[in-house]
Amino acid sequence: MSNALEQQIAFIIEIDKLKQVLRQTLLTDSSRRENSAEHSWHIALMAVILQEYAPPEVDILHAIKLLLIHDLVEIDAGDTFCYDDRGNLDKAEREIKAAERLFGLLPPVQGQQLRQLWDEYEAQETIDSRYAKALDCLQPVLHNQQTQGGTWKLHGVTRDRIMKRISAVKEGAPRLWPFVLQLLDDCEKAGYFRV
Amino acid sequence: MSNALEQQIAFIIEIDKLKQVLRQTLLTDSSRRENSAEHSWHIALMAVILQEYAPPEVDILHAIKLLLIHDLVEIDAGDTFCYDDRGNLDKAEREIKAAERLFGLLPPVQGQQLRQLWDEYEAQETIDSRYAKALDCLQPVLHNQQTQGGTWKLHGVTRDRIMKRISAVKEGAPRLWPFVLQLLDDCEKAGYFRV
Ligand SMILES: [Ca+2]
Repeated sequence: MSNALEQQIAFIIEIDKLKQVLRQTLLTDSSRRENSAEHSWHIALMAVILQEYAPPEVDILHAIKLLLIHDLVEIDAGDTFCYDDRGNLDKAEREIKAAERLFGLLPPVQGQQLRQLWDEYEAQETIDSRYAKALDCLQPVLHNQQTQGGTWKLHGVTRDRIMKRISAVKEGAPRLWPFVLQLLDDCEKAGYFRV
Repeated sequence: MSNALEQQIAFIIEIDKLKQVLRQTLLTDSSRRENSAEHSWHIALMAVILQEYAPPEVDILHAIKLLLIHDLVEIDAGDTFCYDDRGNLDKAEREIKAAERLFGLLPPVQGQQLRQLWDEYEAQETIDSRYAKALDCLQPVLHNQQTQGGTWKLHGVTRDRIMKRISAVKEGAPRLWPFVLQLLDDCEKAGYFRV
């Protein structure tokens, strides 16, 4: 086996660990918490299903790649709940260290390519990364709606914090924004979060 | 919300159920069985990582789409273990019914497009679908090697049955075939399956 393939297989085995990283979000039937690997699958497929609402310039393959890799750093850094202010203080530092180790398992050129994808997602400067993040933010809203408030209720999250977080949809997939506003109104009426 | 978007959101919520479909394969640390959603994420990312070993004509976006959707029918039909002869007798029938229901949730044109992707994967006539299947077959081999035989041992699977199954790699990603043969030799020497 070539050295490159050996490194790639080691990486593929290593990333199996993402299946053990639990997010706050519950599955839609509330039976358990979602893990970051299955979450990544869900939003990658959402990128395909909702493509017609993406800005026309979006490169779907590129957006999907961003979504498939964007949570890998959680293997070392853990999932930081988006409403956890303290956890978010050193999140960047922990995740950069994780990116160095994980992408460093790959052959150097490929490792750099994946690292660039991850940096692009984090920087949120390209339309592809913004479309990707819109989906990453929309999916837990759907789950919280399906679970009668789910993690919003559990953590007493307020509407203005949700709005701040979900504004990523307005940025990355503006054609979905009216739907999101309606969804939040419905959730508010149902008492799924604090006003 | 437009009728189309309503249907797409309903589909996105419905497919959350794939996270509850358990495969025979264990996670690499043997802690639990893998589910089909996280498995789909893993092999979609493998399609990216191992792209240089794919036949040059492979359209990676298309192959990734095939991988992201290929297991959806298991939401209704369940995961049929590839070495379960009886379960495989009526597998096609169960899965076709599932495809009709699931893709039928989407707006008609999009539902047909996804159904065509699933049909393409099942037919195994295109190079994209063969590359996709190669990864779907290679991934559990890596897991079985990492778990000292895993499901091979549990079900007393023999080398010739494994060879028959894994020949999909020879078809779809021939440049990975020497590696797979070496891997199986190593697993045989370690006593991970019956000879
Ligand atoms: Ca995420």
